[in-house]
Amino acid sequence: MPESAIIVGAGASNGVGGALARQFASQGLHAIIAGRTEEKVQKIAEEISADGGSAEGVRVDVTSEEDQDALFALAAERGPIGAVLYNAGNNAIIPFEQLDAKTLEDFWRVGCFGAFLTAKRAIPVLRDQGKGSLFFTGASGSMRGKPNFAHFASMKAGLRMLAQSLAREFGPHGVHVAHFVIDGVIDGDMVRSRFGEFLEQLGEDGCLRPEAIAEAFWHVHIQHRSAWTHELDLRPFKENW
Amino acid sequence: MPESAIIVGAGASNGVGGALARQFASQGLHAIIAGRTEEKVQKIAEEISADGGSAEGVRVDVTSEEDQDALFALAAERGPIGAVLYNAGNNAIIPFEQLDAKTLEDFWRVGCFGAFLTAKRAIPVLRDQGKGSLFFTGASGSMRGKPNFAHFASMKAGLRMLAQSLAREFGPHGVHVAHFVIDGVIDGDMVRSRFGEFLEQLGEDGCLRPEAIAEAFWHVHIQHRSAWTHELDLRPFKENW
Amino acid sequence: MPESAIIVGAGASNGVGGALARQFASQGLHAIIAGRTEEKVQKIAEEISADGGSAEGVRVDVTSEEDQDALFALAAERGPIGAVLYNAGNNAIIPFEQLDAKTLEDFWRVGCFGAFLTAKRAIPVLRDQGKGSLFFTGASGSMRGKPNFAHFASMKAGLRMLAQSLAREFGPHGVHVAHFVIDGVIDGDMVRSRFGEFLEQLGEDGCLRPEAIAEAFWHVHIQHRSAWTHELDLRPFKENW
Amino acid sequence: MPESAIIVGAGASNGVGGALARQFASQGLHAIIAGRTEEKVQKIAEEISADGGSAEGVRVDVTSEEDQDALFALAAERGPIGAVLYNAGNNAIIPFEQLDAKTLEDFWRVGCFGAFLTAKRAIPVLRDQGKGSLFFTGASGSMRGKPNFAHFASMKAGLRMLAQSLAREFGPHGVHVAHFVIDGVIDGDMVRSRFGEFLEQLGEDGCLRPEAIAEAFWHVHIQHRSAWTHELDLRPFKENW
Repeated sequence: MPESAIIVGAGASNGVGGALARQFASQGLHAIIAGRTEEKVQKIAEEISADGGSAEGVRVDVTSEEDQDALFALAAERGPIGAVLYNAGNNAIIPFEQLDAKTLEDFWRVGCFGAFLTAKRAIPVLRDQGKGSLFFTGASGSMRGKPNFAHFASMKAGLRMLAQSLAREFGPHGVHVAHFVIDGVIDGDMVRSRFGEFLEQLGEDGCLRPEAIAEAFWHVHIQHRSAWTHELDLRPFKENW
Repeated sequence: MPESAIIVGAGASNGVGGALARQFASQGLHAIIAGRTEEKVQKIAEEISADGGSAEGVRVDVTSEEDQDALFALAAERGPIGAVLYNAGNNAIIPFEQLDAKTLEDFWRVGCFGAFLTAKRAIPVLRDQGKGSLFFTGASGSMRGKPNFAHFASMKAGLRMLAQSLAREFGPHGVHVAHFVIDGVIDGDMVRSRFGEFLEQLGEDGCLRPEAIAEAFWHVHIQHRSAWTHELDLRPFKENW
Repeated sequence: MPESAIIVGAGASNGVGGALARQFASQGLHAIIAGRTEEKVQKIAEEISADGGSAEGVRVDVTSEEDQDALFALAAERGPIGAVLYNAGNNAIIPFEQLDAKTLEDFWRVGCFGAFLTAKRAIPVLRDQGKGSLFFTGASGSMRGKPNFAHFASMKAGLRMLAQSLAREFGPHGVHVAHFVIDGVIDGDMVRSRFGEFLEQLGEDGCLRPEAIAEAFWHVHIQHRSAWTHELDLRPFKENW
Repeated sequence: MPESAIIVGAGASNGVGGALARQFASQGLHAIIAGRTEEKVQKIAEEISADGGSAEGVRVDVTSEEDQDALFALAAERGPIGAVLYNAGNNAIIPFEQLDAKTLEDFWRVGCFGAFLTAKRAIPVLRDQGKGSLFFTGASGSMRGKPNFAHFASMKAGLRMLAQSLAREFGPHGVHVAHFVIDGVIDGDMVRSRFGEFLEQLGEDGCLRPEAIAEAFWHVHIQHRSAWTHELDLRPFKENW
């Protein structure tokens, strides 16, 4: 029975969630792909199956305790968990004076509270196993607050400290907790359709390829426990940071 | 008409909220003291009045939009705002496996969401004035996640990035946003009653005096705008950090 | 007998070194002003004396062990030391490919090695006194390396970690070690003569006033030891950071 | 003609330098192994050759401009450079009051100045190639100064900001500059002979295995340029950080 990789937060097949699922499935793990939209996660799972991998899609609202319970109940049926990858989270440019309380809360709920709900369910399993990865997709905004991004920076900083606290609390129990600081624009449908011109200005390899991000997750996943990474940044070589 | 200093988050008279109110009132500002418990904030206000200062207490649930609206409506009647000091926030040692979703959310709601609600109301006033301070009581947990403090570190990190984002967005408009990184135990009733022995071990000046914290707030408040501090730490000289 | 404030690294009277000397002398300390050029430090001392303060200038090459020995021998004759302020250090824009080994070393020697030599002589005195301040003028480059500033960032980072190590090692002995992160252009002769146009673009209060920096040093110096600051940033309100 | 990997700072075969050489040689690069002691680097080279890899040892004093010139002249004869790995640097526990100027300078000269000399020679080659890695072995001391480690923290912080400055200056030219934050004790002869008991307390995988560190270097080296890591930490899973 192969270990599972649970990807929480997947949408478009060519996004980071999809790439993570393909990467871990290509290495023999069973990918459990959780996302808001059933048909999207099913599509990713089908593509992986068509390529000979093992995968299934599950509709999950990451902010729902019930949905997360169901996700981890399903995972328990599948066998041991190799990795849990929390990838949910939004972004948008919003000047503070246009930011309302509901929007701020929604950002936090998807990007930080949902990560907590996932961690609550993943940690007991991984700690009992004495091994397994719990990774979070973070952002440079977690360490640097900028104009028009108060909602985003605040949420990502909350996620980062959640991850760091868990790393210190459960690392000694064999749980590998890592935080990936994405710095830059991620290539994908949304960016291509809405910021095509901007993308062209960035030039070749000017935005992050989801596959390259997924490879970094994989490399950290397979690290020997005598030399674990908790945090690393990922950015295009041309990025002005 | 004196400027007001709005202290959001005050309880025991000998806590940080009370010290902030006394410090700013002693320098001639009208202290508007907001806290959960009416009698506590009234008591602080009365003490200040008895000492010849100007102060009033207001019952405010910092997580309530209505309460915060009322607070700033009252402040608007009093005249210009010199400083808004957000001091609300809890702390507690909670192993992650005992941490439930409601507790995590409550910590965030008081320590981070409430700060957002205050900032939303303070920023437009201060920006229109072209001056004024918006300060936040932070913690070293905002930069360092530790076992048993995931809820606290996550909330304080969210607060820190909110503050930093606002500093960068509204500093150029004359709004002085600062974040005070408290590192250590604050002297006070709660600590004395519950951790008396621990306090004795810390020795003289081994925990932070609220008056000393309040002085630091004041010194940053009166800084010339050509040399503003956004962030500083405060800890007892003996602290092992 | 008044305490002395030793300012290491002073030149133009209207620079930071001069402002520090005036600030501490105005509060009753005897200012010992050390700098490369005898006539410059003498001029500052004379101005302070003319204003009724107590001051003297000493020619010191901060990179010379002998000169630093002589400086602290002189200070020992004057009485107890209240504060030692290390303010030496250069800056220049140098693309890495134009940076030679000698220049890199010179930056380090003045900005970091000299600080070590000062700390070596200050620490035993302050620790024996059980009190006293040892402050360092730092820069945001110490935390953020940028193109064309490898030499500067590397030196200032070395200085910052020296300061932080000393704070943790000698704080519990009553020595207040602090690091001031200057972020922005400091107003002064050099800037006015060489970058006058740039200064005008920055607008009113767009660059740091030395007097405002010196006030911040003073406020940290007089902090109660129950709430010491180790690090704070200082930047113009308009700074784009 | 294979690319070369230049390892600057290698000693014992089972140390990090040796592991880096073996790792990069095992992937087909020609390892040029530079270290203070000729016989040690020759031994590593011979072991690699015996295993079918390509390697040679060069005696280099990293603080000598001439030696570094000779090293890169030799590398130029060998062909294109794939990676330059700066691994030199010492560590020792030294209370500040026992730290003399010469020791401080020696730490800086080996750990930071030598890295500059290497970077000066590597950068023009890598930039002209439009690709290649320049990696530095760092330490958590670069971000956190502790008692008895002022010399070490200061030097490693200088190294870190050198690396970060170079990353921002030459990343856009295709040069991948990365900084590896080693946090913990590295397994090896020195540690085993001097701190055997301490090692036993750390337990299995309680100290960093050089091979695991070398793998992390390799994974960063092969990253796609659309998602480069500049900084990552490496520590044993049990580490109390």
